[in-house]
Amino acid sequence: MEKADIGVTGLATMGRNLARNFAHHGYVVAVHNRTEERTRQLMDDHAGEGAFLPSGSVEEFVASLNRPRKAIIMVKAGAPTDAVIEELAAYMEPGDMIIDGGNANYEDTRRREAALKERGLHFVGTGISGGEEGALNGPSIMPGGAAEAYKTLGPLLEDIAAKVDGTPCCVHVGPDGAGHFVKMVHNGIEYSDMQLIAESYDLLRQALGLSPAELAEIFREWNRGELESYLIEITAEVLGHVDAATGRPFVDVVVDQAEQKGTGRWTVQSALDLGVPVTGIAEAVFSRALSGHPDQRAAARGLAGPDATAKPEAGVHADLVEDVRRALYASKIVAYAQGFDQMAEASKEYGWDIDLGAMATIWRGGCIIRARFLDRIRAAYDADRKLPTLLVDPTFASALSEAQDAWRRVVATAATIGVPTPGFSSALAYYDGLRRDRLPAALVQGLRDFFGAHTYRRVDREGSFHTDWSADRTEHSA
Amino acid sequence: MEKADIGVTGLATMGRNLARNFAHHGYVVAVHNRTEERTRQLMDDHAGEGAFLPSGSVEEFVASLNRPRKAIIMVKAGAPTDAVIEELAAYMEPGDMIIDGGNANYEDTRRREAALKERGLHFVGTGISGGEEGALNGPSIMPGGAAEAYKTLGPLLEDIAAKVDGTPCCVHVGPDGAGHFVKMVHNGIEYSDMQLIAESYDLLRQALGLSPAELAEIFREWNRGELESYLIEITAEVLGHVDAATGRPFVDVVVDQAEQKGTGRWTVQSALDLGVPVTGIAEAVFSRALSGHPDQRAAARGLAGPDATAKPEAGVHADLVEDVRRALYASKIVAYAQGFDQMAEASKEYGWDIDLGAMATIWRGGCIIRARFLDRIRAAYDADRKLPTLLVDPTFASALSEAQDAWRRVVATAATIGVPTPGFSSALAYYDGLRRDRLPAALVQGLRDFFGAHTYRRVDREGSFHTDWSADRTEHSA
Repeated sequence: MEKADIGVTGLATMGRNLARNFAHHGYVVAVHNRTEERTRQLMDDHAGEGAFLPSGSVEEFVASLNRPRKAIIMVKAGAPTDAVIEELAAYMEPGDMIIDGGNANYEDTRRREAALKERGLHFVGTGISGGEEGALNGPSIMPGGAAEAYKTLGPLLEDIAAKVDGTPCCVHVGPDGAGHFVKMVHNGIEYSDMQLIAESYDLLRQALGLSPAELAEIFREWNRGELESYLIEITAEVLGHVDAATGRPFVDVVVDQAEQKGTGRWTVQSALDLGVPVTGIAEAVFSRALSGHPDQRAAARGLAGPDATAKPEAGVHADLVEDVRRALYASKIVAYAQGFDQMAEASKEYGWDIDLGAMATIWRGGCIIRARFLDRIRAAYDADRKLPTLLVDPTFASALSEAQDAWRRVVATAATIGVPTPGFSSALAYYDGLRRDRLPAALVQGLRDFFGAHTYRRVDREGSFHTDWSADRTEHSA
Repeated sequence: MEKADIGVTGLATMGRNLARNFAHHGYVVAVHNRTEERTRQLMDDHAGEGAFLPSGSVEEFVASLNRPRKAIIMVKAGAPTDAVIEELAAYMEPGDMIIDGGNANYEDTRRREAALKERGLHFVGTGISGGEEGALNGPSIMPGGAAEAYKTLGPLLEDIAAKVDGTPCCVHVGPDGAGHFVKMVHNGIEYSDMQLIAESYDLLRQALGLSPAELAEIFREWNRGELESYLIEITAEVLGHVDAATGRPFVDVVVDQAEQKGTGRWTVQSALDLGVPVTGIAEAVFSRALSGHPDQRAAARGLAGPDATAKPEAGVHADLVEDVRRALYASKIVAYAQGFDQMAEASKEYGWDIDLGAMATIWRGGCIIRARFLDRIRAAYDADRKLPTLLVDPTFASALSEAQDAWRRVVATAATIGVPTPGFSSALAYYDGLRRDRLPAALVQGLRDFFGAHTYRRVDREGSFHTDWSADRTEHSA
């Protein structure tokens, strides 16, 4: 009996499209779903697209796979994933591989990988980005797990991944949870990108009274320059869309409460543990949270705003469009720099040895944050693998230098006319903080020593010190 | 044999001072420390201050307590706390109480409370703020745990707590981990307060060239008005202090890398889970993290800043001092509003029924964030227990209205002259976001529907919808 090269269990949109993608590339694909109806649907609609082997039970599904078996799980993160892993593992043999293609938390992935390794099985936590469209036609794929597993699994994943300049958007990220970690940070950066786009749209609309259709044109124009990216492209599409039912701009009929599924939140929580300031992602996650509190917003609607007559002095003029474009670009550089710092720090913490340039490479296509911009990031890490921060790469440093006047005007204008731009302003504060010779953190340390005897270090001598604040204020070595 | 009213195990600075505080109030205090040297030291130095019963072993310590026994643990959070709990519990009997006065994570407290309840023991996770000084002379005390335990324990804690207008700074916060949760948020707010103070100092120093001594005078002046608080008071002391070794301002000889012990980080991580935007606390935690990356800072030192000649147009003039004072006050209102929101949300989530006005009451004295300001917060919740956000309390709304022009000038000035003020600008963005009629979150939802079919809601109809973006863009009910 013919056996399958790879299997997919969990045939909702993402799983179904991934299975079809493998079939389109000539692989024999075993397919399975907990409720058989979905498997039947796939066969009814797509059997002609390639070689599928449908199974009604997990046992049959595992048995239909060539060894070493490769079974991809595409189910909900959390308990459902654990349940499916248990079912699969029961029928598998040493050397077989379970690939989790969902948005699992990387800590769960680390735990699962360790547990399955005990049983002789490979567990490959794999980030997959690109939505339904990407799953079908070529996603960006971020597999973790053992290098040994990647040797046999990698070629299949690289085959179905997006290609940019002939290079597949798939690389072995690193051991255990590295793949899901990197996918998490990808999503965090995506939050930040979207927040900056939303602020750009909002500020220009409020300050210049432009219509969504006019703003769509501006984003279309921006997409021809250094901001070229999937998210800018689809922003133009969404802003240009007119609601058929009302004839109003689509963006005006959508409830203005942004939802989230957890990866942005996880990114910030992890960054806090790692001590990496990802202010751009945090402000994006919190902006969504703020939008989702309608009761508070209704109560706060009457709070005082600035005098509208302040606008002319506030620098609101046609050049604001170009200023905002530059502020968006500069803030985006900061957001990516922060996200790449987080990957670097996690790589050290967990011993993953992540190649940051390779991450930029596999994000160039297939995924939501795909952009021309990522080529520049790859080039930065190619030039210096140990770059302390993207901000100091000569290309980015000079882009920031050129953008900074505009960026400052934008933050000042938004504050003056009362439009919230937490993404722009936090990115600028980060930039101004990082380049500072001395920070007021010295005062914070002094206060901490005063009230809690937490001690401080001195700029001129080694050691820790405490000042006896409540007595004669002499200094002691601590 | 005489028995003790209460016991303290763990006699480092905080534990020792707490034991002395009980003794000063006439209680017989059992004292114990893992290494006996510390117990001896306490007896040598302070035996004359009251009635202490020293013990060499845990068994003896527990035996020296009157029933129901009340033993306070003052050891490191985490594993050491678990170890001491186990030792104490082994010798205790049903109805006895273990009180954890350390900075435990509230989730650990919930777990420990549930486990000890099974064994018939009370576990009272208790936040204690005020540093060494507070522990000795009257801290702010935030006990969680069962109401039944508070009945016998509460009077002792209220006795040794700070008093403001005769009211003790101690109240039963709520069941299980409520006390440690509230203490965590207290510390998060403390981070935010210190960050705003640091930004005020830094901006005035950079913009106006004032010396630390001159700035000390400004803070001393501010402490006579609506900003009156312990942290403003000690800021004046720290800024006014001259380093004896060098004759330079103390703040200039301290290494400018702010450290942290975890409670600020926990506050933000919890707020992310609860969906409460605590942007002020997040920016404060991340500012400390940024300061603690000397390698990146050294590399970034050469990045371009604004043209120094821009300063006069940027609104840098003597009025900046008053503007900064107002910006500080407004940003502080936002930070507290966010922290109180977080307590309200956690109270709902865990069924704690926290009285927010009472929290403001017990923070008026003894703790690090004690301030005249907290009376105003108490009044706000007295007037409306279900206040949706502190920002809309009439007193605060009018303070924000009066401050907002200055606040906007400060954020604009800082951005223009290149001084990082992430606390001021994120607070302003939060204020401007919350009061907005429509937020650009609608665009974010549109983008999410475009790339991930995440659906959206409409302003004019119930239900969830998806637009078929890749085909004819018709809308479907989802």
